[in-house]
Amino acid sequence: MPTARDAQNLDMADPLYSRREKFLLPKEIVYLDGNSLGALSGRVPATLETVVRDQWGDHLITAWTEDDWWGAPLRIGDRIGRLLGAAPGQIVVGESTSVQTFNALVGAARLRPGRRLLVTDPDHFPTNRYLAESVARLCGLDVVAVPVPDVHGFLREQGEQVAVVSYGAVDFRTGRLWDMAEVTAAAHAAGAVVVWDLCHAAGALPVALDDQRVDIAVGCTYKFLSGGPGSPAFIYVARGHHDTFEPPLTGWHGHARPFHMEQGFEPAPGISRTRIGTPPVLSLLALEAALEVFDGVEMAEIRAKSLSLGDFLIECFDQHLASLGFELVTPREGALRGSQVTVAHPDAHALMRALIARGVIGDVRPPNMLRFGYNALYVSHADIHRAVTTLRDIALSGEHHDPRFTTPTLIT
Amino acid sequence: MPTARDAQNLDMADPLYSRREKFLLPKEIVYLDGNSLGALSGRVPATLETVVRDQWGDHLITAWTEDDWWGAPLRIGDRIGRLLGAAPGQIVVGESTSVQTFNALVGAARLRPGRRLLVTDPDHFPTNRYLAESVARLCGLDVVAVPVPDVHGFLREQGEQVAVVSYGAVDFRTGRLWDMAEVTAAAHAAGAVVVWDLCHAAGALPVALDDQRVDIAVGCTYKFLSGGPGSPAFIYVARGHHDTFEPPLTGWHGHARPFHMEQGFEPAPGISRTRIGTPPVLSLLALEAALEVFDGVEMAEIRAKSLSLGDFLIECFDQHLASLGFELVTPREGALRGSQVTVAHPDAHALMRALIARGVIGDVRPPNMLRFGYNALYVSHADIHRAVTTLRDIALSGEHHDPRFTTPTLIT
Repeated sequence: MPTARDAQNLDMADPLYSRREKFLLPKEIVYLDGNSLGALSGRVPATLETVVRDQWGDHLITAWTEDDWWGAPLRIGDRIGRLLGAAPGQIVVGESTSVQTFNALVGAARLRPGRRLLVTDPDHFPTNRYLAESVARLCGLDVVAVPVPDVHGFLREQGEQVAVVSYGAVDFRTGRLWDMAEVTAAAHAAGAVVVWDLCHAAGALPVALDDQRVDIAVGCTYKFLSGGPGSPAFIYVARGHHDTFEPPLTGWHGHARPFHMEQGFEPAPGISRTRIGTPPVLSLLALEAALEVFDGVEMAEIRAKSLSLGDFLIECFDQHLASLGFELVTPREGALRGSQVTVAHPDAHALMRALIARGVIGDVRPPNMLRFGYNALYVSHADIHRAVTTLRDIALSGEHHDPRFTTPTLIT
Repeated sequence: MPTARDAQNLDMADPLYSRREKFLLPKEIVYLDGNSLGALSGRVPATLETVVRDQWGDHLITAWTEDDWWGAPLRIGDRIGRLLGAAPGQIVVGESTSVQTFNALVGAARLRPGRRLLVTDPDHFPTNRYLAESVARLCGLDVVAVPVPDVHGFLREQGEQVAVVSYGAVDFRTGRLWDMAEVTAAAHAAGAVVVWDLCHAAGALPVALDDQRVDIAVGCTYKFLSGGPGSPAFIYVARGHHDTFEPPLTGWHGHARPFHMEQGFEPAPGISRTRIGTPPVLSLLALEAALEVFDGVEMAEIRAKSLSLGDFLIECFDQHLASLGFELVTPREGALRGSQVTVAHPDAHALMRALIARGVIGDVRPPNMLRFGYNALYVSHADIHRAVTTLRDIALSGEHHDPRFTTPTLIT
């Protein structure tokens, strides 16, 4: 029987509760869309002021060395690496997730010349699907859409033709968490290379890139890492591939001697070969400041809190929403969930807009899914309780049928 | 006989002189590296504070619509378009210049299937050369390096095999300005598509993309547009190609209905198909604020001032540097120059470091070139005079032989 009092008790026992104070969240808002854009961390505004006025403004071009802007993509990459089980020197931050995905897929395919299949999830995020098709066209591959549960069987039967296996660790709509170790091992058994999309996993739950022998991974930094709107993405390439990984995006920052400005691309040693163009320094250094909220926390603690929030959300769902035409999309079992619970309802769009008007922010995904992402660093059990009971009140009152919520918008 | 008094007189007659006040330049610095990183405009810090605290911090995910982050890539593109002679709806801002160059070259090659040559400048900027090779490998093309002066002859002889002609409007080392209209016309006469790199032209001098019937152009925004370190690049695709341009970087932002998250990439109508991933919003909106310094100015005024600065620099060079082992690399004729004068000297690196230590900032490019870029919106004739006489004093005194200037660094 999950009540407001139960929520309060859970929050009082939560060792991460006070971390919420590190974020500049509006007081009256319940924010459950940190799986789309993480909240603003308190360290960011002052850091940006320094970067803009002191570094760009006063140091001008010399800031590239004086303030080590040049080193930022690898320095921040290592910081993210700690959260992903990656030893230093295997992650670069820069460019958008779409661009990193392209670089990763082409680079992966080139590690397995002679194999012609690129296996990916039919339910993968649009960018991943579109780019898989584009990469296939450029590299002479065929894309095969295989749902994750079927990939083992597929690899057993046709694995010898598979160059690349590309999946997302957490399904962006359903919040379903896949077993990265298992899929990676199956891909390796078939001789293929894996490319993991960690957009909905990085900062949300423990990932063990090195231990699981993942080949390549890509992820965004503006969801659970709270790096800011459009903060640059990251790419991980396991050390064992550093000498053979051939990125198609051969920008000068990835050259062995970028400032010699030589003819002919000679890739830099190590992960630096995945550097591409000049990174967006303001967004990049805002991300670096934002990552300080992870200092002194282990991903296991974040995961424990996230599971507690998810369990509580599902309890609240059972009590308040199950009987009102809502359907639980996300698995009940904690081990099968990311840090998000999705519920379906035919009026998803209007319900979410009415909910946002009441100060509870989530989002929707086609065709009918309401997504609630909870960042364990700043979401409380009380937030979850308020979100579910507000949604219940809206559904009961029918206020979401108001034209201001049913008129189509950009995203509907 | 260019004296400090001459500089002062020229500055007093300069209608753009007061625009310098719109920039937050350190008082004691002469900044002649705006061709690498433009100076900080005074509008930027307050805008970023608003974007970070009010938009990201308070509006959170709803800022994508409420503050129209979604519209920014095209809105800012149109603003840049005014400076480049491009009618609205043909420019998108986002990603790095390297990424836009890749997208442009593959997209251009696909407009001319069956032709196998990609013609480019052997002296083009490294990223352009490396990416031309990469695109050729992916698309089955051959790269032919043809210096600009030879391109007309080459196109007359082998033009029917040429798919893409790709040059920079201004040579990044020498500051040589090429005749875009002439090269574009020659490419078109051969049936090829042109891709212009405007990195050293945008914001520095008038460009007439529509009038000259340029097909595709790419440029960065952190040089003469002063958008901030690593501010996102732009791509121009002429309206006539919008229906047929097929970008290889098929990110979901370029889809016809991005929020429907459909299977299969259906490119958006118009220039929106060149959108790729989520742009770095902080860097993007800093750029938008920075562009306000161009409000109420025509590129012709900027060009007139830039030519005056360049003429004056060359006069100062003749008087103070020509006899000290320096060589003028940039053409004397104004019509053949961008907004940069380059001089060569065997001790270029040490001389530049000694010069920077004296508060005059330019940069160096291999093997022996000192570059002085002058942004007409904030550089004065007095700055030019001080730069040249300071360099003369250093060369005469030999202070650049001090080990703190001769020890190798990242860029030497």
